[in-house]
Amino acid sequence: MYTLYSMQRSGNSYKVRLALAKLGIPHKLVEVDILQGESRTPEFLAKNPNGHVPLLEAAPGRYLAESNAILWYVAGGSTLAPEDRIDRADALQWMFFEQHSLEPNIGAAFFWLALIKGGRDLQRHAHEDWMEDGYRSLGVMEKHLAGHRYFAADRYTIADIALYAYTHVAHECDFDLTRFPAIRAWLDRVAAEPGHVTMDWQAETLAVAE
Amino acid sequence: MYTLYSMQRSGNSYKVRLALAKLGIPHKLVEVDILQGESRTPEFLAKNPNGHVPLLEAAPGRYLAESNAILWYVAGGSTLAPEDRIDRADALQWMFFEQHSLEPNIGAAFFWLALIKGGRDLQRHAHEDWMEDGYRSLGVMEKHLAGHRYFAADRYTIADIALYAYTHVAHECDFDLTRFPAIRAWLDRVAAEPGHVTMDWQAETLAVAE
Repeated sequence: MYTLYSMQRSGNSYKVRLALAKLGIPHKLVEVDILQGESRTPEFLAKNPNGHVPLLEAAPGRYLAESNAILWYVAGGSTLAPEDRIDRADALQWMFFEQHSLEPNIGAAFFWLALIKGGRDLQRHAHEDWMEDGYRSLGVMEKHLAGHRYFAADRYTIADIALYAYTHVAHECDFDLTRFPAIRAWLDRVAAEPGHVTMDWQAETLAVAE
Repeated sequence: MYTLYSMQRSGNSYKVRLALAKLGIPHKLVEVDILQGESRTPEFLAKNPNGHVPLLEAAPGRYLAESNAILWYVAGGSTLAPEDRIDRADALQWMFFEQHSLEPNIGAAFFWLALIKGGRDLQRHAHEDWMEDGYRSLGVMEKHLAGHRYFAADRYTIADIALYAYTHVAHECDFDLTRFPAIRAWLDRVAAEPGHVTMDWQAETLAVAE
């Protein structure tokens, strides 16, 4: 059985939990509180030298990092992972876009503005860049979704799961989605998919360890 | 025939040029000078709303963005793209690592310190973060390469191509690789692979358009 090292309130971890739930794959969850330094212990760094969650133990002692790579692994062979060459490339295109153009701004904003008590003051210098880059990325997504129901392969795939994780909480960290009607309709479609589970996070209850 | 929109001095573009050369795939190159705003014209944004190079025209009017997604597309079916499920996931893990943990610091440092005249002064505020995060990522790579000849599937793959692009010019933008012997040995191995082509960039001859 898979063991998933994850943090409940992490969007990257939520992606994998959502995929495992939709696929009905049994797994054991181990909560790693990165704010208490639990991803920087020698024990955890021996499993993932990059010190990030989520981390999948795919087989005993065989670890896999990076949320979007884990999605390809757990969804391999299912309809969630398109294997046609151009469809796969399209899904990958959006998943690399997610890690390069969306997670570093909307993900960072969610972490500091919605999850961390006092995070807004600590990160005041970064706010303008998060907003500018985040809105730019939302604009790229809106343009695609104006003409497509999903991101790749004309169906719900792990590319949608990857992009949903932080986009569906963007309004919790200062992003106004009212000007993105196609994104809002897509968020509703994803949430209405059979087997959907929610992220279940709580706002501003965490404090960074001293 | 493929058309590749790229910039000669871009590491992300070099990845695709290197893969196409190794695979012996004929293609047409279109140079896009992002410093002159050529990736922000209405014509280019119609092809790629995210306004980035490289961009592959895989078939007439069918565009694919994101360097690492393009690598999976052009290398699909070759030994460069591992299809075994866990090997594929390992390759993807390192390619997402590259876009999230390496390109944003070593790639940014290379762009501003090595390519842009006066870039060092313009980006003085970012230098410390680039160095800290870049060295951290190099440490993760060094640890892996101390026990493996390549990044995934025990052979040269597109994961090596993705990580090689910016790592092999890291010494041109203030990173000292003398303390990373396994990385240096791997860089030599990659450069010695049959069919290797060099990046052919020139230092500090570019100026940002006003």
